[in-house]
Amino acid sequence: SSASKSREYAHHGAPMFADLTVSEMKAVRAYLHEIPEMKLTDARSKSLKKNSILLMELHLPRKHEALRALDRGHAKPPRQARVVIMFGNQIKPNITEYIVGPIPFPNYHEVKTFKGSKPVLFESRPITNVEYAHLENKLEEIATKAQKLIYESTGGFSYTNCTNRCLTFSDIAPRGLAPGQRRTWIMLQKFVEGYFIHPIGFEVLINHQDLDPDKWTVEKVWYNSMYFDSVEELIDKYESGEVEKFQLPVHDDNDLYSTYVPRGQSNTPTNIHGPKLVEPQGHRYHINHNFVEYFGWSFAYRVRSSAGLQVFDLRFNGERIAYEISLQEAIAFYSGDTPAAMQTKYIDAGWAMGSSTYELAPGIDCPEIATFIDLHHFFDTDKPVLHKNALCIFEMTTAMPLRRHFNSNFQGGYNFFGGLENTVLVMRTTSTVYNYDYIWDFLFYQNGVVEVKVSATGYIHATFFTPQGLDYGTKVYNYVLGNLHTHLIHYKVDLDIAGRENSFETLDLKYVNFTNPWSKQNFIVQSKLQRNEHKTERSAAFRFGKKFPRYLHFYNPNDKNKWGHQRGYRIQFNSHAHSVLPKGWKEEVGISWARYPLAVTRHKDSEATSSSIYTQNDPWEPVVSFEDYIRNNEDISNQDLVAWVTVGFLHVPHSEDIPNTATPGNAVGFFLRPFNFFNEDPSLASKSTVIVRPGQDGKPKIQRWTPEVIGHCVTERPFSYNGTYAGV
Amino acid sequence: SSASKSREYAHHGAPMFADLTVSEMKAVRAYLHEIPEMKLTDARSKSLKKNSILLMELHLPRKHEALRALDRGHAKPPRQARVVIMFGNQIKPNITEYIVGPIPFPNYHEVKTFKGSKPVLFESRPITNVEYAHLENKLEEIATKAQKLIYESTGGFSYTNCTNRCLTFSDIAPRGLAPGQRRTWIMLQKFVEGYFIHPIGFEVLINHQDLDPDKWTVEKVWYNSMYFDSVEELIDKYESGEVEKFQLPVHDDNDLYSTYVPRGQSNTPTNIHGPKLVEPQGHRYHINHNFVEYFGWSFAYRVRSSAGLQVFDLRFNGERIAYEISLQEAIAFYSGDTPAAMQTKYIDAGWAMGSSTYELAPGIDCPEIATFIDLHHFFDTDKPVLHKNALCIFEMTTAMPLRRHFNSNFQGGYNFFGGLENTVLVMRTTSTVYNYDYIWDFLFYQNGVVEVKVSATGYIHATFFTPQGLDYGTKVYNYVLGNLHTHLIHYKVDLDIAGRENSFETLDLKYVNFTNPWSKQNFIVQSKLQRNEHKTERSAAFRFGKKFPRYLHFYNPNDKNKWGHQRGYRIQFNSHAHSVLPKGWKEEVGISWARYPLAVTRHKDSEATSSSIYTQNDPWEPVVSFEDYIRNNEDISNQDLVAWVTVGFLHVPHSEDIPNTATPGNAVGFFLRPFNFFNEDPSLASKSTVIVRPGQDGKPKIQRWTPEVIGHCVTERPFSYNGTYAGV
Ligand SMILES: [Ca+2]
Ligand SMILES: [Ca+2]
Ligand SMILES: [Ca+2]
Ligand SMILES: [Ca+2]
Ligand SMILES: [Cu+2]
Ligand SMILES: [Cu+2]
Repeated sequence: SSASKSREYAHHGAPMFADLTVSEMKAVRAYLHEIPEMKLTDARSKSLKKNSILLMELHLPRKHEALRALDRGHAKPPRQARVVIMFGNQIKPNITEYIVGPIPFPNYHEVKTFKGSKPVLFESRPITNVEYAHLENKLEEIATKAQKLIYESTGGFSYTNCTNRCLTFSDIAPRGLAPGQRRTWIMLQKFVEGYFIHPIGFEVLINHQDLDPDKWTVEKVWYNSMYFDSVEELIDKYESGEVEKFQLPVHDDNDLYSTYVPRGQSNTPTNIHGPKLVEPQGHRYHINHNFVEYFGWSFAYRVRSSAGLQVFDLRFNGERIAYEISLQEAIAFYSGDTPAAMQTKYIDAGWAMGSSTYELAPGIDCPEIATFIDLHHFFDTDKPVLHKNALCIFEMTTAMPLRRHFNSNFQGGYNFFGGLENTVLVMRTTSTVYNYDYIWDFLFYQNGVVEVKVSATGYIHATFFTPQGLDYGTKVYNYVLGNLHTHLIHYKVDLDIAGRENSFETLDLKYVNFTNPWSKQNFIVQSKLQRNEHKTERSAAFRFGKKFPRYLHFYNPNDKNKWGHQRGYRIQFNSHAHSVLPKGWKEEVGISWARYPLAVTRHKDSEATSSSIYTQNDPWEPVVSFEDYIRNNEDISNQDLVAWVTVGFLHVPHSEDIPNTATPGNAVGFFLRPFNFFNEDPSLASKSTVIVRPGQDGKPKIQRWTPEVIGHCVTERPFSYNGTYAGV
Repeated sequence: SSASKSREYAHHGAPMFADLTVSEMKAVRAYLHEIPEMKLTDARSKSLKKNSILLMELHLPRKHEALRALDRGHAKPPRQARVVIMFGNQIKPNITEYIVGPIPFPNYHEVKTFKGSKPVLFESRPITNVEYAHLENKLEEIATKAQKLIYESTGGFSYTNCTNRCLTFSDIAPRGLAPGQRRTWIMLQKFVEGYFIHPIGFEVLINHQDLDPDKWTVEKVWYNSMYFDSVEELIDKYESGEVEKFQLPVHDDNDLYSTYVPRGQSNTPTNIHGPKLVEPQGHRYHINHNFVEYFGWSFAYRVRSSAGLQVFDLRFNGERIAYEISLQEAIAFYSGDTPAAMQTKYIDAGWAMGSSTYELAPGIDCPEIATFIDLHHFFDTDKPVLHKNALCIFEMTTAMPLRRHFNSNFQGGYNFFGGLENTVLVMRTTSTVYNYDYIWDFLFYQNGVVEVKVSATGYIHATFFTPQGLDYGTKVYNYVLGNLHTHLIHYKVDLDIAGRENSFETLDLKYVNFTNPWSKQNFIVQSKLQRNEHKTERSAAFRFGKKFPRYLHFYNPNDKNKWGHQRGYRIQFNSHAHSVLPKGWKEEVGISWARYPLAVTRHKDSEATSSSIYTQNDPWEPVVSFEDYIRNNEDISNQDLVAWVTVGFLHVPHSEDIPNTATPGNAVGFFLRPFNFFNEDPSLASKSTVIVRPGQDGKPKIQRWTPEVIGHCVTERPFSYNGTYAGV
C-alpha cells in the first residue's frame, strides 16, 4: 500500500538527518588533520595563534536530493560534515567553513561560503575554552592589583588565593561596539552556588583582540558607579579617597538566597512524592535511532551543535506536513545601569547553544518513564563529547480530554457520553546558556496538532544594584538588580503541506451590514471572512507593532479535502514578543529576523538558517542576515514556502525569580494546527475512546477498545460512568 | 502563630461560600411555597401561566461581613439564598428575585433589585423544560403539516411517528430583535448520535411570547435558501413547483461522521492504555467540604447554578491574594447565511451554564486519581438535582521542571545540578451548553502562580450548507456548514493583594538614547521601564483593538517586600479575543464587558456579576450592564479593586472539528503571577527539590528530601544523575 511505502521511505530517509556519530566525527577530524596545508593543531592547546577545528556537525543534504530518498525510496545522498576551522596561525587570521565528505570515509573538502561571499571576521568567532583560560589569567592580574579594594569591598572575597571566599566572573557579549573589535566587559561575582546573582559591583573592559594574550589591555573599570581608564587609576583614587568606598553587606554563609536548598513551610506534605506518570502497558511510541513514530506521526530529529533541536520529514499517516521545523536562534537583550548590563545582548547560537545540552534528570527534567537518549557534540574540543541522557522522548497525559461530550436528554439522563483522553508525545532537550536554562519542546498531539514551545528557567542575568538601575529592573537582593530583558526565539518552519508547492493566505474578519432577510425593517451586522493571499515575500513579512492577522493559513493550492477546501495548516502563536531595538540600530542589524513575528520566504538550500554562530560577536555586519532572504521579494504563490516564526516575552525580573526563573507562565511558542488538511479529526483513529450509552436495562453500556482494568498499580476499579443527574 | 490563626480563620469562613445543600434548598422551597400570596406551583407542571421557582442558589454575604469572619474569626453572617421566581400567573407577568434567609430555617424574604431598579421583562427569562414541551408540540404540528416535504427532502426522516429516522431540533437565541419579544428560530436536525451537525435545511421562526401555547404562531419558514411567511405557503409552493425541491444525500447509517466510534489507522498501538497518573504515596492536598489546601494555597469554592465555578478567599501562606475569582459569562456569536446562523448569539449564563455540570469520566475528563465531588443544582426543577462527580480536584505533574539549572564547570563536569518537578493542583468543572462542552480549570502552582483556563470541546454549532455560507465558515460535510464564531469568556478577579487597598499600574517599555558612558563617541539605545498608574476606572478600561500594555500590575501601595518593592501580582493573558460587534450595536449592549480585555473597577457588593441569566433573551436592554460599573469613573487608587478579564478566540470551523472541536490549541485564559509579592520564590518550600553535587570521590552526591525509591509501581530505580559530559 502507499501508506506502508511511505512509512518505509520515511524510515529509509531518516538517517540523512542523523547527527554525526562518534566514529564519523573522528574520521572527519583525522581527515582534516592529515591535510598538511591546513596545519591543524589541537583545539585545547594553549595558543590562540593556531589553526584548529572549532565545530563539526552534520551538513544537511540538499532538499531535492533528500526528497528523492524520502518520496521515491532512492539512494540517500552521501553524508557530509560541516566543519568550522579557525585559522589563527596566519597573517590575516580568518574563519573558514568546509563541507567534508563523503562520510564515513572523507576524501574531499570544499569551502562553504556565505551569501555574497561575505568573509567571516576572525573577531566574530565564538569564545573558546583556551581564550577563557587566558582571560582568567588577565583577570588574575587585574584582581591581584585590585586585591585590597576587592577584599575590602566584598568583606573578604578574592579572585586568587582563596578557599571559601572566592570570586568568579561572567563575560558579556557582544564584545565591542563595531565589527573587528574583541573587547569584553567582565563582571566579578562571588563564587558560591548560584554565582550568577552575586555580582560584586566590579566590572572591567578587557581588549583581547590580539592573538598574543600578553598584548591584552584593560580599557575601562567600573566600580561604585564610576568609570576609570585603568585598574591603576581606580586603585590610586581608591587609596587617595577620591573614590567613595563601598562595602557589600557582610556575607552570610547561611543565607540560602541563590541556592536550591528548601526553606519555608507549606500546609500539605511535599516530603512524599507527588503524582507520577506510569505506562502500565508499555510505550505507545517507537524510536529507531533518530526516527520516531507515534500515533499517525513520524519524523526524524537531530540536535545541531550550533543551534539545537530540529525535526525533519514530519508526516502524519505518511503525508508530509513539514520538511523541517528547527530552532534557529535565541536572544536576550538587556537594559541596565552598569556597563555590563547595558552591553548585554546575548545571541545564543554564538555560544553554540545546541551543544549546551546537558544531562536530563529523570523525574525532574523529564518523567521517569521517558526514553533518555545520548547526544554527541564536537564544539571546542579535540574529541567528540558524550552528552549522556541529553534528549528525552516520552508520552504524557495532559490530564484533560482531547474531546468529550455529554449529550444530555434534558430529562435527567443522556443520549450518550463520549470522550478521549488527551495524550501527547514530547521530545525535549535543554540548552543551558551559562545562567539560563531553556527547555525546548516539540509536542505531537493525536489530532494532527504540533506544539513547539520553549520554557525558560535557570538563573537570571543580574547586575550590581544602583538606584538608577530601578529604571531597568527590580532589586532582588541587598545589592543585586534583576535587569529587564526580552527573550526572542526564532524558528524555521519549512511546511510542506502534502507536497512542496504551497501558498499562504491570512484570514481576517470584516463586519458586513445588510437588511434582515426575514424582517426588512431591521439590519443585520455580522462578521465575514476576509481571505488575503500574500503573493510576495514582502507582503508576507509582518512587522512587530503592526496589525497581525487572525489566522495564518498555509495550504496546498493543488489539493483539496473531501469537502472541497484547500488542504492546509495554520500557525497559531502563543507569544508576547516585541521588538528589542529600533530597526537598523547597530546590533539590531544582526537579528533582522526579530523584526517579524512571521515572515514567509521561498525555500532555498542556501538559506538554511536565519542566524549563525558569528552573530554574537559581530551583530553589526552579520554574515548571515535574514533580511537578505526577503529582500528579493520573490513570488510565494504555489511555491516551496518556509515560515519563519519569532516568539518571546518581556522579562522584568521580580523577587520570585530568586533563586531561578520558574517555568509556569514563562513558556512561549506556537501551534501547527490542521485546517481542512484531513477530512475529519485524525485522532478518531485512537482506540482509547470511550462511549457510554444508556442500556436497555437502564444501566450504562460502556463501549471501549482498551482493556477495562489497567493493572493494580494504576487502578483496580474498571471505568465506570453513570450519566444521570437525578432529583434528590 | 499568625499563620495558624490565618489558616483557622480561612477554614472557619469557607462555609460562607459553600453552595446550598439539599436540605437547605428544600427548606427554602418549602418556606416560599408556604407563602400564600406567592401562589407558587410546581416548576414542572404544564402551564406557563403560573408562579414558580426558576432558580435557587447561595446568596453571597456582603464582603465586609465575610471579611470579619475571614480576617478576625468573627461569627459568620447567616446564610441566605437567592431565589428567582417567575410570576406568570398575573396580569403583568414578571420575574422577581428574592433573598431568603436565614438558612436553614428561613423566616424572611426580600426583593433583590437590580441597579436603577430595572424590572426584569418576563420575556427575558431562560427557557424551561415546560416551555420546550410546548415548543415540541408546536413543532409536531408544523412537521406534520410539512411531513411530505420533510420526508422527501431528507430521504425518509420525520419529526413524529418515526423509529430510526427521527428528527430533533436546536433553538437559537436571542429570541427576537428587540426587548419584549420571544420569537425563536428553530432548526431541524436528524436525531442521530451527534445531531448538532445534522441540520436538514429546515428552519422555522416561532413566536411563543404568549403564555397560552395555543396562541403561538409560525412567523417564517426557511427552506432551500428561501423565506416563507407560513408553513402553508411553503407547502403550497413546494407542491406547485414554485419552490425548487432539494434532497439530502441518501442517509448512510454506517457513516460514522458525527460519532465517536474509532476509525482509521495509526502506526503505534492505541488499544493499550497510555501513560497514567498515579500517586504512590497518596494525595498531597486536603479537601474539607468546600475548603481546599495545597502547598501554600488555601481557598474555598462553589459552583453557581447560574454561571459556574468560583474561588473565594484565595490565600498563599495565609495571606490573601484574591477574595474572589469567578466565571461570569461565556458567549459565542456566530455568522452565517441561514436565518438561524445569523441570529445565533449564545450568551450562556442565560442557559444556566453553571448547572450544566454533568458527570466527569475518570481517566478522560479528569485522571483516575482525581477526587470527584458531587454538586447539587436547583434550576428549572421541583427538587434539588444531584450532579454526581461533577467537579474534580487533582494534583498532576506537568512533566516539566518548575525550575532547573545545570551549573557547568565548562570542563566536562559541573558545580551542581538542581531541579524541582512542576506539579500543580487542578480544580475542574465542565459546562455542556447544549452542543459545546467548556472545561473550566483553575490551576494552582507551587510558586504562587494561578492559571485560569477554559478549553473548548464538544460539537460545533453548524447550519445547513449554502454556497453563500462559505463567506462565514467551512463546509464540513455534504450539506453542513461549520459557522465562524467567536468565543468570549468573562471572569471577575477580585484581587486583594495582601489586603483590600490596592492600586493598579501598567508597565511598558520606552527606548532611551544616550551617550555611551565608556565610549563617548558612541550612543546607547536601550529600553526603559515606563510605569503608569491608572487612577480612574475609565483609564483602566482597555478596549479591544487598542494598544494593550505589556504588564498589568496590581499592587498593595501600603506594603513592600524585603527589597522595597510594592507587593503585587500581575495578570498575564493567554488569549486571542477580539470584539464581536460594533460598540453599541443591538445585542452588543448586552455584553458591554466584551469591549474590554481588562477593566478595573472599585469593588461594590452591588456589582457582584457582570452579566445575568436574563441577558440571553434581552441583550438589548440588559438588567445587568457592565458598562454601568465604570460609567461613574471612580478613583481606583488605593482602593478595593476588581479586575474584569475577557479572554476568547475566533473559531473558524474546519474539517478537523468533526466530530468535535478538540482541546489542543483551543484553550485560553490568564495567569495570576506574583510580582514582588514574596521575597523569593515560595516554591522553595517544596521538599521535592533534588540537588546533585560532585562528591569528593568524584561520584555525584545527591541531596533530596523525599524517599529515594518511590515504590515498585513507579520505578524501582533510585534517582540517579551523573553530570559529566566526557570526551569519548
Ligand atoms: Ca527570497
Ligand atoms: Ca516548504
Ligand atoms: Ca464604578
Ligand atoms: Ca479587591
Ligand atoms: Cu529572562
Ligand atoms: Cu467554537
